[in-house]
Amino acid sequence: MPRLRLALAQVNATVGNLPGNAELVLKRCREAHTAGAHLVVTPEMVLTGYPIEDLAYRATFIEASRAAVADLAERLESEGLGDLVVVVGHLDTAKSDTLDNVPDRLGVPANAPTNSASVITGGKIVARYDKHHLPNYGVFDEFRHFVPGDETQIVQVHGVDVAIAICEDIWQDGPSAAANAAEAGLLVVLNGSPYEAAKDDERHDLCARRAREGGCALAYVNLVGGQDELVFDGDSLVVDSQGETVGRAAQFEEELLVVDLDLPAATARMPEADERFEGLRVQRTVVSSEPVSDDAEPLPARIAERWDDLGERYQATVLGLRDYVRKNGFSSVLFGASGGIDSTLVAAIAVDALGPENVHGISNPSEWSTEHSRGDAAELARRTGMHLDTVPIAPMFDAYQDALNLDGLAEENLQARIRAVIWMGLSNQDGHLVLACGNKSELATGYSTIYGDAVGAYAPIKDVYKTLVWEMSRWRNAWAESQGEQPPIPENTISKPPSAELRPGQVDSDSLPPYDQLDAVLDLYVEQGLGSTEVVARGFDAELVERVVTLVDRAEYKRRQYPPGPKVSARNFGRDRRLPITTQWRESL
Amino acid sequence: MPRLRLALAQVNATVGNLPGNAELVLKRCREAHTAGAHLVVTPEMVLTGYPIEDLAYRATFIEASRAAVADLAERLESEGLGDLVVVVGHLDTAKSDTLDNVPDRLGVPANAPTNSASVITGGKIVARYDKHHLPNYGVFDEFRHFVPGDETQIVQVHGVDVAIAICEDIWQDGPSAAANAAEAGLLVVLNGSPYEAAKDDERHDLCARRAREGGCALAYVNLVGGQDELVFDGDSLVVDSQGETVGRAAQFEEELLVVDLDLPAATARMPEADERFEGLRVQRTVVSSEPVSDDAEPLPARIAERWDDLGERYQATVLGLRDYVRKNGFSSVLFGASGGIDSTLVAAIAVDALGPENVHGISNPSEWSTEHSRGDAAELARRTGMHLDTVPIAPMFDAYQDALNLDGLAEENLQARIRAVIWMGLSNQDGHLVLACGNKSELATGYSTIYGDAVGAYAPIKDVYKTLVWEMSRWRNAWAESQGEQPPIPENTISKPPSAELRPGQVDSDSLPPYDQLDAVLDLYVEQGLGSTEVVARGFDAELVERVVTLVDRAEYKRRQYPPGPKVSARNFGRDRRLPITTQWRESL
Repeated sequence: MPRLRLALAQVNATVGNLPGNAELVLKRCREAHTAGAHLVVTPEMVLTGYPIEDLAYRATFIEASRAAVADLAERLESEGLGDLVVVVGHLDTAKSDTLDNVPDRLGVPANAPTNSASVITGGKIVARYDKHHLPNYGVFDEFRHFVPGDETQIVQVHGVDVAIAICEDIWQDGPSAAANAAEAGLLVVLNGSPYEAAKDDERHDLCARRAREGGCALAYVNLVGGQDELVFDGDSLVVDSQGETVGRAAQFEEELLVVDLDLPAATARMPEADERFEGLRVQRTVVSSEPVSDDAEPLPARIAERWDDLGERYQATVLGLRDYVRKNGFSSVLFGASGGIDSTLVAAIAVDALGPENVHGISNPSEWSTEHSRGDAAELARRTGMHLDTVPIAPMFDAYQDALNLDGLAEENLQARIRAVIWMGLSNQDGHLVLACGNKSELATGYSTIYGDAVGAYAPIKDVYKTLVWEMSRWRNAWAESQGEQPPIPENTISKPPSAELRPGQVDSDSLPPYDQLDAVLDLYVEQGLGSTEVVARGFDAELVERVVTLVDRAEYKRRQYPPGPKVSARNFGRDRRLPITTQWRESL
Repeated sequence: MPRLRLALAQVNATVGNLPGNAELVLKRCREAHTAGAHLVVTPEMVLTGYPIEDLAYRATFIEASRAAVADLAERLESEGLGDLVVVVGHLDTAKSDTLDNVPDRLGVPANAPTNSASVITGGKIVARYDKHHLPNYGVFDEFRHFVPGDETQIVQVHGVDVAIAICEDIWQDGPSAAANAAEAGLLVVLNGSPYEAAKDDERHDLCARRAREGGCALAYVNLVGGQDELVFDGDSLVVDSQGETVGRAAQFEEELLVVDLDLPAATARMPEADERFEGLRVQRTVVSSEPVSDDAEPLPARIAERWDDLGERYQATVLGLRDYVRKNGFSSVLFGASGGIDSTLVAAIAVDALGPENVHGISNPSEWSTEHSRGDAAELARRTGMHLDTVPIAPMFDAYQDALNLDGLAEENLQARIRAVIWMGLSNQDGHLVLACGNKSELATGYSTIYGDAVGAYAPIKDVYKTLVWEMSRWRNAWAESQGEQPPIPENTISKPPSAELRPGQVDSDSLPPYDQLDAVLDLYVEQGLGSTEVVARGFDAELVERVVTLVDRAEYKRRQYPPGPKVSARNFGRDRRLPITTQWRESL
């Protein structure tokens, strides 16, 4: 069997940075060449970054992306890497015959953008595949942005037929059947597949199934890195035609995964353009028909170790935060260090993402702040090495109250807002990016003060329920212990009852149901999208369900102004769940 | 020719309020019956309100909507209105044969929702049409939410064949041709078509064109009212088969428009189900074949007077604000009354929307506030009758500065944020909804303080460029004069140079290009979506363009946390323009 040495370039692209992203690809091509690879595959839209949203329509951006592909081809050739076959993801514009085949009742966006993969070799673009299946659910809006492709591309490399697909294509039926019909030896899949809990297992099973259907090996290359609310987790993998894993890259890190594959030789079919297959045109391109010998010992298989479920979530928040800060031109962050579990977990994440020297906690004690809270914040700073400054809020509080005489909830919110003004002032003065420390249970129920603790440019744990905040905190401490390091999170912060400390003796359970019950109902109502009656049917108290559902429905306006933060669940408050603010629909029981 | 008396129920539905919306329809049906109408047509999805976003997936909501249609049919019958033929918009779930015909590569959303119109008569639902063409651009996401229909419905009413379409259906080719082929006498179109400047003319021309294509009269029924960022402007209309307007309802108000139409009798074609027409199944239903005599004098034509372009925009903001406040359970608003033109225009809008007794201006003078600003705010209050309270910010400012020692921009922002804390405190205490007074030029360039002047639940003029703020202010004053009333906006507020008054002698032109140039560049870059080179090619200075484009690109994070406000332009900062916060793409020249 002919052998192919395949290199998967799992890189961290940045949306809009065409030269930087091209440089990332080029660097990995150099490494791949040095490693003797024949075929390099990048993630989906690696040259533009992903997702680009309405930048897809911008004629100047499309043109720049097309130029970047041509430029990459030239640079590879001029550096003596022209014999590599590189499949690179980018933004392009639909070919006229594709436009003629746009499915009935699907409009064509301005400038007819496509989500494309070009095959580069010998200084030229020899084939181009446009994504067929456009996801338009969850966080995705691809019918808004792209024209679907209608051509299957089969490229022969060293005597092996290689088929191409992009991300959603393999979640729907199609390319594996096409690869099968075309008797391809390998299906390469370019992906921009965002992390969510347990998605890696689902992806792995999908790849194995598609490989078996296609009767071919399958190479799955994913982006890595944070982009606004999404975190791409890498975890690129290669399975053989039986669906067995023969290579797997790290999660949440860049990597060039090099794998040797012994693959069936291309059949005697002659290259034939515009062959019709189930309504799709099949284009065949022969780059080289000369097989590579499989005499040498193949490379040892690289199967990266994997994080467990809590570790994945934690690493996703670390990477999401690091990239949001870095890609937006910041280097340091600031947040309110209350001594509570939420801000403490955020501190640990920030220290892991940016280093303790770039993390600034601000303690803003009030009349109702307990001694242990201040002590816990100080202990957190001692353990992590982050900065901690203290600015008491009493003088500002008194100045406002002399003029306003607020009481009740208005008085509680005032304290939270005074703190926010202090953080924003220090942020403006010193150039730190402010983090909001709210968790998903708070965000769901509106248990936060808008323009108070809800301020910030980024909210690292907004998609983490409170019960998971504790679990991730324990996980982080256990991980430290397993590494022989000091656990960053003070034990008392984990064990004490949660409180906003906005009035004497206040605890969260004054206003909210116990978090285990609350989070269980939220999971059913928010993440699984059930109605109240269905939630009650799962065995929850009707009054509790009604209370929680009402809180969730009424807090939409607060969520709309909340900072972005990394999606780690199956359905985040963001692109995944789009509800009107103004609605009088109330689930009834 | 048989005559039909047609009643268009242009009503203000509220998203989620099924009983309330059904009541609105019922009330109009009673009126229509009293007026002798035969056929009543409602707007798109009137029973659920529109757009319902991800509520479309909720099984409980779909079921409630289906029940509301059946209930409406029963109530009409029990009230003796069973002889009316009512075409009512609602949420439903796809029929199984429709699901079988979902276009290739288009997924089916959870619970297969449809955007439907049911024909009710005699206490029964006799036909149902599901929207064929799903808009998925601009502010719309209908591929996300609905399964497209594939049946054409022709309902014979008093011997006239009536075809049905929903909104986007007539913006795309299809139903008018179907009506033509079916030799229908009338095409009724249910709409949820949001206002934007000059869209009414476009709609009118489209209706006339489709009527001529269809060789039939066309009745266009639109929603009226505000829903989050959208304002539905009503403006329902009827054209005859030559495209001549024979009836037109008011803009921005509820109305039952009753029109007499003499229409061709249904041809001798027998009712025939599942007749295929261009891939669509045609269903024919005969409600009544007995023509109504056209002997009596027809009703005089009602053609409502129309607002001019500035009047339209102004009325759209008034209605948007009134409905946001009212539909979210508030009755009064509060905002920072600086004496500047933006907050003054907002005050005039709020007074028109809610009455002066429900409008609370708060003046927060600082060291740098000029005497004329305070005077202008007081004069505004005098002219409009709104409340005006004064809370100086010096004591709070000093308290913060004792602790923080901020300077430069951080010090300027501090003042804006102190004001915001005061407004939010008063809002929490007194239950007023806070308005943000920023305009579109500010929002575009980021010329605002996040968590400062940017706070609020609703931002009435966020889609109005500064140059238009002045024009709308002048328009409002001129309108008052034309009505013999005192102009609400002090002349000095219109004529003085704009300033944020955050440092001595500050004017906007210190930080921004002159507004006429700025707004012209913004129109090309933001609303028309051109790249920098294209904007420069229109004759603008390259340095100016680069400066403006850079400001716009960098302010995305502020816009993401800005309150909602009514869309009045062709492309708002909101659902119309979805760009990543994190992007390193910079237009180059």
